[in-house]
Amino acid sequence: MTESILPTFADVERARERLRGHAHHTPVVTSRTLDGLVGAQVFLKCENLQRMGAFKFRGAYNALSALPDAARVKGVVAYSSGNHAQAVALSARLLGMPATIVMPANAPKAKLDATEGYGARVVRYDPAEDKREEVAQQIVTETGATLIPPFDHADVIAGQGTAAAELIEEVGPLDALLVCCGGGGLLAGSALAAHAMSPGCTVIGVEPELGDDMTRTFLTKAAQRLTSVPDTIADGARTMGPGVLTLPLLLQHVDGMVTVSDADLVHAVRFAMLRMKLVIEPSGALGLAAMMSGKAGVRGRVGIIVSGGNVDAAMLRWILMEDGERPSVPPEP
Amino acid sequence: MTESILPTFADVERARERLRGHAHHTPVVTSRTLDGLVGAQVFLKCENLQRMGAFKFRGAYNALSALPDAARVKGVVAYSSGNHAQAVALSARLLGMPATIVMPANAPKAKLDATEGYGARVVRYDPAEDKREEVAQQIVTETGATLIPPFDHADVIAGQGTAAAELIEEVGPLDALLVCCGGGGLLAGSALAAHAMSPGCTVIGVEPELGDDMTRTFLTKAAQRLTSVPDTIADGARTMGPGVLTLPLLLQHVDGMVTVSDADLVHAVRFAMLRMKLVIEPSGALGLAAMMSGKAGVRGRVGIIVSGGNVDAAMLRWILMEDGERPSVPPEP
Repeated sequence: MTESILPTFADVERARERLRGHAHHTPVVTSRTLDGLVGAQVFLKCENLQRMGAFKFRGAYNALSALPDAARVKGVVAYSSGNHAQAVALSARLLGMPATIVMPANAPKAKLDATEGYGARVVRYDPAEDKREEVAQQIVTETGATLIPPFDHADVIAGQGTAAAELIEEVGPLDALLVCCGGGGLLAGSALAAHAMSPGCTVIGVEPELGDDMTRTFLTKAAQRLTSVPDTIADGARTMGPGVLTLPLLLQHVDGMVTVSDADLVHAVRFAMLRMKLVIEPSGALGLAAMMSGKAGVRGRVGIIVSGGNVDAAMLRWILMEDGERPSVPPEP
Repeated sequence: MTESILPTFADVERARERLRGHAHHTPVVTSRTLDGLVGAQVFLKCENLQRMGAFKFRGAYNALSALPDAARVKGVVAYSSGNHAQAVALSARLLGMPATIVMPANAPKAKLDATEGYGARVVRYDPAEDKREEVAQQIVTETGATLIPPFDHADVIAGQGTAAAELIEEVGPLDALLVCCGGGGLLAGSALAAHAMSPGCTVIGVEPELGDDMTRTFLTKAAQRLTSVPDTIADGARTMGPGVLTLPLLLQHVDGMVTVSDADLVHAVRFAMLRMKLVIEPSGALGLAAMMSGKAGVRGRVGIIVSGGNVDAAMLRWILMEDGERPSVPPEP
């Protein structure tokens, strides 16, 4: 394996320049009701209000706009059935680049439609027959397009770090920052920004209990992988293990990892909807759930990155059912 | 009837000073998806993210903080089963004043609890036996407290106008401004602000079809009242007719009135939730519904006051059902 160059805070600053005027400067929302419940002063950075509904736009747009002209002409490829697909599709359209997104043939129609709606070519594959990495690699070989991975890429990580940078610039130094963790791109970028701009800020990643690969990696200081896709409503955090870049960044820059249950996520998403008037997807509520359940164990001035809001009506209806009436099996995200 | 002194833009400016540091400066949210759908550039002023979840905090806090010391000691009274109750209760607590809220005995428990949660004394009455105005008047007589009406009050109207003032200050001149209309306090205040800060801006009030008292008043240039409480999911717009102050302000300052159906409201609330990640109560979506249905008939740079987000889980679940599966009778708001 070749030595990989890790992104630094200077890369986050460069990403901020590239994103200026293209990404939304998302609002920071506060709630005295929430503060009273958790005994802290909480600042929610609302990336659910970001373009295409998630922080993923930041990393994708930064990575695409960093490509040299020769690569831009040949376009980009990504494999994702989630927010990364839409982020790459939208960024490519804005930058006038062709984009191909590799999605499983059984992906929800809404996600296929949204991705095609942004002008991307969607290539479907049968997940029982083919590996998405191989399908994507074949397109790269045939077209010369550049593969944009969902998290394990220096420009993607640097782009994701701009949300935390905006938050700290707006509200000042923090005692703690809670960040959702799937593959660790948002967490790594946020840690780079927080430690540069708010020294002493404790950066904590939050995973679903059943997808605790990064938590176990953090505790054992060695890469741990899941053996099967975790069964959690936090579909954006169904990653299997750390990447080549996010592993060392996790071990060097992150101060702690905690996990929350799906019940914690339901409670947090409900609270956000009914009390804060914000629609947050389950993965996007990992940080809020860690705070509200007490599992984060932090106080003082606490920033939380609310990572996205792309959740469908069936899942929202299920979450909005009263406790006791909600079927135990959630709808497929 | 004595001559009533109408509020002016100078009163809105004074209200802004009183509210500074107490009301949230709520975010303005934009969506290129929405802009593409409606063929305009839309700016949503998110008063659903205001304290206690609605613009009502602005008017109540302004009215209470304008009271002289002698009146403050004796406290305030309001009758409301909705957002005005919580707005007066919270404002009174912040200003250290006693508050009594007169609510029907059959009001939803969540609203009773929320109002008491802000520290107000709640007096229940039987709506079949007593008139809320008389119950409130009796408390005024006994305690010397000041009655704070929900909309027909110069300081309340001036306070409500601060949302439009913030919006125009932030985004610049508008071609049109769409404002939800119940009793007309928000509409009147918004018109005062818009015409002073953005001359030429067309200010349009939006009512539910079944609660069109202000629309008919506008068209006939004479006060029209409903004969029964309108059956609409826009429970914040179930007012019966214009007030002594809102009638002349409507006729002098508002450029148009339109109505939307409950189906338009359902469509707008769904869109706000699933695409814009915002929870808006049906009354709060009147302006957005007028824009999305084409009934507002405006283009260019369009501001919309999203007035509130206090809606319960049962109503949200009903709205989130697919068209065709949704029972025709909504849950009681």
